[in-house]
Amino acid sequence: MADTTTGTDLGRRLARLEERTRALEDEREVTRLILSYGPLVDSGSADAVAGLWDTDGVYDVDELLMRGQDQIAAMVRSDAHQRWIAGGCAHFVGPPRVTVAGDDATAVSYSLMVTHEDGGFVLRRATANHWTLRRADTGWRIVNRTARVLDGRPESPALLASGVSTPVPNEERA
Amino acid sequence: MADTTTGTDLGRRLARLEERTRALEDEREVTRLILSYGPLVDSGSADAVAGLWDTDGVYDVDELLMRGQDQIAAMVRSDAHQRWIAGGCAHFVGPPRVTVAGDDATAVSYSLMVTHEDGGFVLRRATANHWTLRRADTGWRIVNRTARVLDGRPESPALLASGVSTPVPNEERA
Amino acid sequence: MADTTTGTDLGRRLARLEERTRALEDEREVTRLILSYGPLVDSGSADAVAGLWDTDGVYDVDELLMRGQDQIAAMVRSDAHQRWIAGGCAHFVGPPRVTVAGDDATAVSYSLMVTHEDGGFVLRRATANHWTLRRADTGWRIVNRTARVLDGRPESPALLASGVSTPVPNEERA
Repeated sequence: MADTTTGTDLGRRLARLEERTRALEDEREVTRLILSYGPLVDSGSADAVAGLWDTDGVYDVDELLMRGQDQIAAMVRSDAHQRWIAGGCAHFVGPPRVTVAGDDATAVSYSLMVTHEDGGFVLRRATANHWTLRRADTGWRIVNRTARVLDGRPESPALLASGVSTPVPNEERA
Repeated sequence: MADTTTGTDLGRRLARLEERTRALEDEREVTRLILSYGPLVDSGSADAVAGLWDTDGVYDVDELLMRGQDQIAAMVRSDAHQRWIAGGCAHFVGPPRVTVAGDDATAVSYSLMVTHEDGGFVLRRATANHWTLRRADTGWRIVNRTARVLDGRPESPALLASGVSTPVPNEERA
Repeated sequence: MADTTTGTDLGRRLARLEERTRALEDEREVTRLILSYGPLVDSGSADAVAGLWDTDGVYDVDELLMRGQDQIAAMVRSDAHQRWIAGGCAHFVGPPRVTVAGDDATAVSYSLMVTHEDGGFVLRRATANHWTLRRADTGWRIVNRTARVLDGRPESPALLASGVSTPVPNEERA
């Protein structure tokens, strides 16, 4: 009787631990996915960059809206992007603040674009990023990344605020 | 008899795992709290910024000492800060190195302040940050954040060093 | 009979959880080690910087190849480095993307070197970093850090790409 009780109790504690570990792993996977963007884009790894997104994922930058993996890969292969790489370029993505809720996640991060020009380095852009992600069969993928440059346009602070308030279903208690 | 032994053994392993998971969760919570600062302050979310601190928490910046949530919220609402937001501003906080010891934690991080001026971006400040935090009933809160600009003043390297040596009670073995 | 089955089953789940927790802890340790570099080097903590590396670890920077802890400590103690600290300097290391495989690990990260000059801050360098690490008896240590400035030299994008494809033995499924 005592053994049965213990077994049941252990099973419950184990199940709770499995859930907590899964939550930590999910957040780690999402973080790692986001941190793959810079090294892949700055090395011109076009297919691998596109593969961070869902098949029909969206990458919405101020001056450019990309829908689907083909358009994202095309951006990496473009002459403009290849010139950045050839000249020297860092898409420095800051540590994301991630919120996971089941099979959905959101994240907010800053990114800096640094380029090498005339023998020196130039901070070309500081950008607000809002990411939504979804768990696919093969792991987490980006559904939408919206990036707005922090040049005073009101959208950018709004994007930062929405990333922290995290309007994700079943959000943890604040 | 065998079952009892197994149950006890499993219970011990489970308790140890619960502890380890709690340690990972604590470090993750502290990291996430610190990474909330930038998005909240750059979106002018004054009350939410203040809410990252303990009721009587301290935010000690070179030229400004803020004591308590009201003074921190007032800084966010100030004309000076609102002008940064209106012009375009990134308080880019780097990944913190966190040390948790029971209900106390310390962290060390860099931060960059980038502003948009005359159509370009300016790196206005690189700063050393030392954070102390405490577990409250409602989660981790900042007790003290000390920020010193890395302009050669000796306090700033000292702050960085103290954040790694982590003079926290019951510190893990090095 | 039922109890035995349950005990065995619980034991298996527990063993699996222990493995997953260990994986999370390893990644966290490697991340924390890498994030120690900046605060230690910018505070001139020469021995502690050297102690991040294995006894015969290598730090391979564009213009300088350091072999072993003594050469790394000597770099920190050099007049050139001490002048950076005295003038104001941030070795801002971005969040690493870490891959652990057993007792080996690789990581890729960006770093920015920011210095204080003539009353302002200068972004002197944006650099690609590839780290390999090994678990020692006393914890994780750096075996090799290769850093190449992102100024258009082809090595730097190649270094970023290799850090994501992670040619580590027994690499997790993609």
